[in-house]
Amino acid sequence: MSNKTSQKFVKNAVGRFVPEIVNGVRMIPFKGINKYVPQGQIASPPVRSCINYPADGNKIVRNLKEALKKSGLKSGMTISTHHHLRNGDGLTNVLFDTIKEMGVKNIRWFPSASFPVHDYLIKYLEDGTIHHIEGSMNGPLGRFASEGNMKGTGVLRSHGGRYRAIQDGEVHIDIAVIAAPCADFFGNANGVQGKSACGPLGFALGDSEYADKVIVVTDTLVEFPCVPWHIQGNNVDYVVEVDSLGDPSKIVSGTTQVTKSPDRILIAEYVARFVEEAGIMRDGFSFQAGAGGINLAFLLSLKERMKSKNIKARFIRGGSTRYLTEMLEGGLADYILDGQAFDMAGVQSLRDNPHHVNTSPFTSYNFHGKGNFASMLDVVVLGATEVDIHFNANVVTHSDGYLLHGIGGWQDCLFGQCTILAIPSFRDRVPIIVDRVTTLCAPGEMIDVVITERGIAINPLRQDLLSKVSKSTLPIREIRDTQNEVYEICGGKPDQPNISNSDVVSVVQWVDGTTIDAIHRIEK
Amino acid sequence: MSNKTSQKFVKNAVGRFVPEIVNGVRMIPFKGINKYVPQGQIASPPVRSCINYPADGNKIVRNLKEALKKSGLKSGMTISTHHHLRNGDGLTNVLFDTIKEMGVKNIRWFPSASFPVHDYLIKYLEDGTIHHIEGSMNGPLGRFASEGNMKGTGVLRSHGGRYRAIQDGEVHIDIAVIAAPCADFFGNANGVQGKSACGPLGFALGDSEYADKVIVVTDTLVEFPCVPWHIQGNNVDYVVEVDSLGDPSKIVSGTTQVTKSPDRILIAEYVARFVEEAGIMRDGFSFQAGAGGINLAFLLSLKERMKSKNIKARFIRGGSTRYLTEMLEGGLADYILDGQAFDMAGVQSLRDNPHHVNTSPFTSYNFHGKGNFASMLDVVVLGATEVDIHFNANVVTHSDGYLLHGIGGWQDCLFGQCTILAIPSFRDRVPIIVDRVTTLCAPGEMIDVVITERGIAINPLRQDLLSKVSKSTLPIREIRDTQNEVYEICGGKPDQPNISNSDVVSVVQWVDGTTIDAIHRIEK
Repeated sequence: MSNKTSQKFVKNAVGRFVPEIVNGVRMIPFKGINKYVPQGQIASPPVRSCINYPADGNKIVRNLKEALKKSGLKSGMTISTHHHLRNGDGLTNVLFDTIKEMGVKNIRWFPSASFPVHDYLIKYLEDGTIHHIEGSMNGPLGRFASEGNMKGTGVLRSHGGRYRAIQDGEVHIDIAVIAAPCADFFGNANGVQGKSACGPLGFALGDSEYADKVIVVTDTLVEFPCVPWHIQGNNVDYVVEVDSLGDPSKIVSGTTQVTKSPDRILIAEYVARFVEEAGIMRDGFSFQAGAGGINLAFLLSLKERMKSKNIKARFIRGGSTRYLTEMLEGGLADYILDGQAFDMAGVQSLRDNPHHVNTSPFTSYNFHGKGNFASMLDVVVLGATEVDIHFNANVVTHSDGYLLHGIGGWQDCLFGQCTILAIPSFRDRVPIIVDRVTTLCAPGEMIDVVITERGIAINPLRQDLLSKVSKSTLPIREIRDTQNEVYEICGGKPDQPNISNSDVVSVVQWVDGTTIDAIHRIEK
Repeated sequence: MSNKTSQKFVKNAVGRFVPEIVNGVRMIPFKGINKYVPQGQIASPPVRSCINYPADGNKIVRNLKEALKKSGLKSGMTISTHHHLRNGDGLTNVLFDTIKEMGVKNIRWFPSASFPVHDYLIKYLEDGTIHHIEGSMNGPLGRFASEGNMKGTGVLRSHGGRYRAIQDGEVHIDIAVIAAPCADFFGNANGVQGKSACGPLGFALGDSEYADKVIVVTDTLVEFPCVPWHIQGNNVDYVVEVDSLGDPSKIVSGTTQVTKSPDRILIAEYVARFVEEAGIMRDGFSFQAGAGGINLAFLLSLKERMKSKNIKARFIRGGSTRYLTEMLEGGLADYILDGQAFDMAGVQSLRDNPHHVNTSPFTSYNFHGKGNFASMLDVVVLGATEVDIHFNANVVTHSDGYLLHGIGGWQDCLFGQCTILAIPSFRDRVPIIVDRVTTLCAPGEMIDVVITERGIAINPLRQDLLSKVSKSTLPIREIRDTQNEVYEICGGKPDQPNISNSDVVSVVQWVDGTTIDAIHRIEK
């Protein structure tokens, strides 16, 4: 696997300097929203034959090592995993213990995301077992990469971008290892049953469809057929039964607590009022809000407003939580279209309620499809680490330059009809509204509204929204006004990060696979 | 489109002479069961982009003509349709009226099956609008082809073979036209809701995944999202709303009547007794039986046997009928895995019962997958038009040489663990057990048991089955004995069909895409 990431940079359509060659592969600089027209054909796996699979359907092999051996594991391969088990994932660490034990090196690890539990893998990044990570690096692994310790260069993609990269053949997965809370011997699998139930398994869908070899690992093996089969056994090569996939108590996210901060509750209130007063909250509308504290508070406020106006949404996009399932059960929405479950209420509802529907990055986010669900949303409420006075936004690095978050579905969701960043105006006395975002993850034209506890800034491109709330008593104000107020409170703009201009530790892709920005090494 | 089908024949592994070139395309002669190892990669459609699809998700165009125009319809293209609406399909005839009106010629029509209602299309076969049909030709269209009236050469594939052909790129579909009893404007569609509800839509799955352009036509347009989405809008280009897809009363099959013939009831009894006495009927077993009169009588008998022994099946494979849904509801099976519904009870159960599960030729039958469901069945009960003394069987032509039936899932099902042909020993005084089948659709090694009203013949290859029923009072006898008895009744073997040895009107593929036999023109 090539280490070569060019130190020659090209300026892309948003004025960011990005390397053309990343890990030896030529990448296309960002050309602007809806400007890059893809060419060619999607990836085409080899034609298989039933001749080479057991007629009785039983694909179980003794253990993960045997499955990897039968899959032809060798150095330099690309291995993928999914992150539905979040910080409770025990399997990925065992996977790399096994790979290490087999003497295999230079793996490109292609997770849909990594979590703090995976700081265990730093030793394998150090000893050359893992060459580099392509996928979000939350927390410790991001810090490790930021300091220039990763052999190769990270590539950050959104959930939709990851599916697209697999489908387009940009990332060829040699072996997909799919943690499955429930599976049968044929490889049919779901995440809604079993002791490690986590909800959907959609982040592994593309892996199962396009990887050369697919290994399903389960701690709850059921008799064929495992229903529903969110992962289809017809795409699976081997099945491995293990005692445990990890720690069920950590599978549900730690973020599903409504905020108690008065400032953040105020933000949530502003968002809900804005959605109502801008006329977005109307019968049959749709919305998406994540599982962060502000978002949950927003949901509670929205719920009361919908109830009092007798309004029903047609659908809500998950990540699901009990806040969403209660709305579904309470008749405030016809459907939840769910890509991941953040708590057990979400898991159970997906399992039991036919109006709580499993989705995937293919249905919801793939930009190289015949449309996707994301652009149909009437409103999406998202976070950000920074936003600048031109509404450009950052979701992966902090102002100190450290890469600490993944993109998730954030970029994908920005294609919704009204996109709102709901963020505090400063964190730890660091202003969030800046002159220039440290890393540009989305150009300002994709962000319609920035709502902080100090007011609501509407993108001048959205005169329609401005006129809709022109008579509102909401604190609509220029984004620069809020910025200046916060600069005064915090003692000016954030310190410039101390970064190397030449060394790129990761690039950030736009949803279409072009490079929108580069993340540089922190000079210590 | 080439008319060239070679008049030079090669002898394949079952001794049948087949053309190497069919409609100008080289085909591989049958090499024996599990002998042909496919090479290469599966078909890869172009990379699409959301740029080219409406952001609001609305893909509705005014009418079918506009959808065809936007899809770039031109002469020589391949157009596919599905047959879930059976003899109630009104759409396909309108489709070809439209194609004719647009002045387009030489279409390769690639239906999953055709029905008597499609005899309307004979005029378009005559005037060159349709070049030839690749797909089963039931009744009038088969007769038309048999008499040498079709410009090109038919290609008969099983349901699994059709999916495989699409997936492998053997058949490239330019435009798929999918009749959808329920759909939303994005193209999500199912067959379980709406006035033309027909059950699953699985026969159109491959079409939706691999066709260049996909048009969904519905007579019940619902607000997004249409749930469940058995056809995914992410694969759809255009949606057309029409008043009616056809005649709902003819969508349900005419074959779902239990036989009243004493001989056929006897056959059904023998089958059920055999399944019980051979030890196949045991807790957790699985079976498949179609919707023919003998099969339904078999199901009723099996049901009573299961009840009295307190035995529960793990799963039943549909086509579903009320006979199956009653077993599911009565606790005699955990699941129905369903590929098509033959009556409204089947449709409703698929819609409402989470243990009645939608399947497709991909999950159930695709021989070029990582295994499929068919080989896991403990027992399958099928029909045939002829079987010979070596257990070779025919399911498409009669002894007079006329092509009158499609293969359906018949070949695919033969990979089950015990395959039973349940057939009368003669029909209209024509013996069914012959010296040599008119058309060979499956080699004898795939048929385990032939059950007629005159006894049960077990394939000598299945000594295990023979020994299991060695103490049974069932009329186990040599297949030749039954043949001789019937020859005496009917006055000897059937007349030889009067066919042209040089002119091939259709070829028959095996599930792996190799040519197992050719069907010749009838000399009148």
